[in-house]
Amino acid sequence: MQFALQRVDLRSKARAGIITTDRGKIHTPIFMPVGTAGTVKAVDQRTLQQDIQAAIILGNTYHLYLRPGLEVLKAAGGLHQFMGWDRPILTDSSGYQVYSLAQQRKITEQGVTFKSHIDGSKHTFTPERVVDIQRGIGADIMMVLDECTPYPCSYAYAKQSMELTHRWLQRGIDHLHKTTNKHNSYQSLFPIVQGSVYKDLRKQSAETIAATNQPGNAIGGVCHPTGQLYEITEWVCDILPADKPRYLMGVGTPQNLLECIGLGVDMFDCVMPTRNGRNGMLFTTQGIINIKNRQWKQDFTAIDAQLGGYVSSYYTRAYLHHLFRAQEILGAQIASIHNLTFYLWLVKRAREHILADSFVTWKDKLLKSITQRL
Amino acid sequence: MQFALQRVDLRSKARAGIITTDRGKIHTPIFMPVGTAGTVKAVDQRTLQQDIQAAIILGNTYHLYLRPGLEVLKAAGGLHQFMGWDRPILTDSSGYQVYSLAQQRKITEQGVTFKSHIDGSKHTFTPERVVDIQRGIGADIMMVLDECTPYPCSYAYAKQSMELTHRWLQRGIDHLHKTTNKHNSYQSLFPIVQGSVYKDLRKQSAETIAATNQPGNAIGGVCHPTGQLYEITEWVCDILPADKPRYLMGVGTPQNLLECIGLGVDMFDCVMPTRNGRNGMLFTTQGIINIKNRQWKQDFTAIDAQLGGYVSSYYTRAYLHHLFRAQEILGAQIASIHNLTFYLWLVKRAREHILADSFVTWKDKLLKSITQRL
Repeated sequence: MQFALQRVDLRSKARAGIITTDRGKIHTPIFMPVGTAGTVKAVDQRTLQQDIQAAIILGNTYHLYLRPGLEVLKAAGGLHQFMGWDRPILTDSSGYQVYSLAQQRKITEQGVTFKSHIDGSKHTFTPERVVDIQRGIGADIMMVLDECTPYPCSYAYAKQSMELTHRWLQRGIDHLHKTTNKHNSYQSLFPIVQGSVYKDLRKQSAETIAATNQPGNAIGGVCHPTGQLYEITEWVCDILPADKPRYLMGVGTPQNLLECIGLGVDMFDCVMPTRNGRNGMLFTTQGIINIKNRQWKQDFTAIDAQLGGYVSSYYTRAYLHHLFRAQEILGAQIASIHNLTFYLWLVKRAREHILADSFVTWKDKLLKSITQRL
Repeated sequence: MQFALQRVDLRSKARAGIITTDRGKIHTPIFMPVGTAGTVKAVDQRTLQQDIQAAIILGNTYHLYLRPGLEVLKAAGGLHQFMGWDRPILTDSSGYQVYSLAQQRKITEQGVTFKSHIDGSKHTFTPERVVDIQRGIGADIMMVLDECTPYPCSYAYAKQSMELTHRWLQRGIDHLHKTTNKHNSYQSLFPIVQGSVYKDLRKQSAETIAATNQPGNAIGGVCHPTGQLYEITEWVCDILPADKPRYLMGVGTPQNLLECIGLGVDMFDCVMPTRNGRNGMLFTTQGIINIKNRQWKQDFTAIDAQLGGYVSSYYTRAYLHHLFRAQEILGAQIASIHNLTFYLWLVKRAREHILADSFVTWKDKLLKSITQRL
């Protein structure tokens, strides 16, 4: 994997670059749709590729390991073959899912044991094991095992947890070098900055992971409603090497994306466009829409004419309102496709404006429209 | 609406023809995907048109009248505009839905009163009102109001009900002539043969509706598990005029379609491909698949390579199995698209073989493969 930094904005720390993987190029900044269990929920692969034009998607080690399981994925020739997706896939290491979904989680120096949320079966993830699993999945970008701390979190616990994450990181990297690429693609490993809300810990963590010199770096533990997202992101981005892509995990709203792009983040993922879409919340170029509201009942204009893209210009707000009122599956499909189209549009426009040195002006103006409730 | 009968099979009563409407031609025999509430469940309009290649779809007067309601549909410029579908739409008159879904149904000479299954609100459908509603919907083919009798049904009740349906038919036709086409398309009205399982009633009903000389004729009340589907269909088809299309309502399995095509039916609709699809049952050229079964867990072959079509050749059985096990929405999408592709493939092949005088041989051979459980 290579990263070419093309330009840094003059008035902010926003960057435009290109990540090159064996499965294709990714123009940054980029948003990665979340395909938890081998499917971006309610979105067909062809639509994801041709309409949404996703350059890379995210898979989830915890979910994929439990179902369909490694045996099936290996027999299929990896996740790409299994799901019919030939562009890059990043898999997260499961730190967050083990924390949020699994039962009877127990963390030791060795790793983490947990019970499956599906059938209660017991499993152990170690830093070595999650590398093996992600190699078996065939991820183009793998993540190290980390401990995702709760919020709020005491300084003492945050420090102890961060140090454990750092030791796991070294074990993960050691194991990476003892193992080989699977399924015909070079597999990079990204370390993850932790340290909760504490500046000295975040800085220490950023320095530690930067020193490992991996092809890219991630910032974890920021998807809690801390209110300190921008602060933490800025502390860390100012330390992480400029010649590697920076991935802010699990973030966020369109506003979060734009502000964090301005702080030097290159990669994002979040369930928000799909999950909120399934609940009837639409992000549009004009503002935020709750499509279930009566006000849309006879609005026969396109969902978002300015956005472009198939579903956003083809279907009307009134029709989508009806689909949600009638609890029709097509409602979830259209809303998910629309929101992902919006997120990919957002990062594409951001990139264009970074390259044209107009990012900050554009961002400040756009934020006024896209953050209002219609 | 015109119907051109192109050919009658030499060894059966199967027919090939072309229905011409203001919104396009329909090559018969045809299957009409059911779009109950303005959406073929889990299927996007573009997929329905380009991949499944549906020539006509069915809407449901009862559902559309209740939600989104006539006011919205009229304001939208009709159902076609509302849902984004420019090919023909047939709406059923609601006899079956009032019978099966509505609460506190009460039938009088005047019409039927019922309470909505959604909010308990009270409504009255008369033969005149359902013509008005369907005109407002903008249906290219409308159905008369009929009483759908229960099964089993006494001779006395079946006779009395049929006579009521015939009186309603005449009122519907009278009202048709007093009203005008809406939403820029000629709107035909099809009468419906009733009479339960009784031969003399079915024949009398077929003669009565044939005498009204409408552009097409329908056979109703056969979607109960009577075991007499083929008998009833044959009695009726032998009476209905050859120069009008014959529509067998709510039927059925692939086998039902082929056998009834052989008896002279031209049009079908059924929720089976979509409803069974959502439950994991797939109709394929090789046989019937319950995709949830363990046997498909590592079957990395296409869902139905011989069928062709995007989803059926792109996705594997193992992947679809996984989606159903994980209760992912994409599973319902793929299964629905696949099954509809199969149904449309079936009637298209039937038509080709009717035109080539090879229908019966082809049908008998195909039935052996498609009816087996894999």
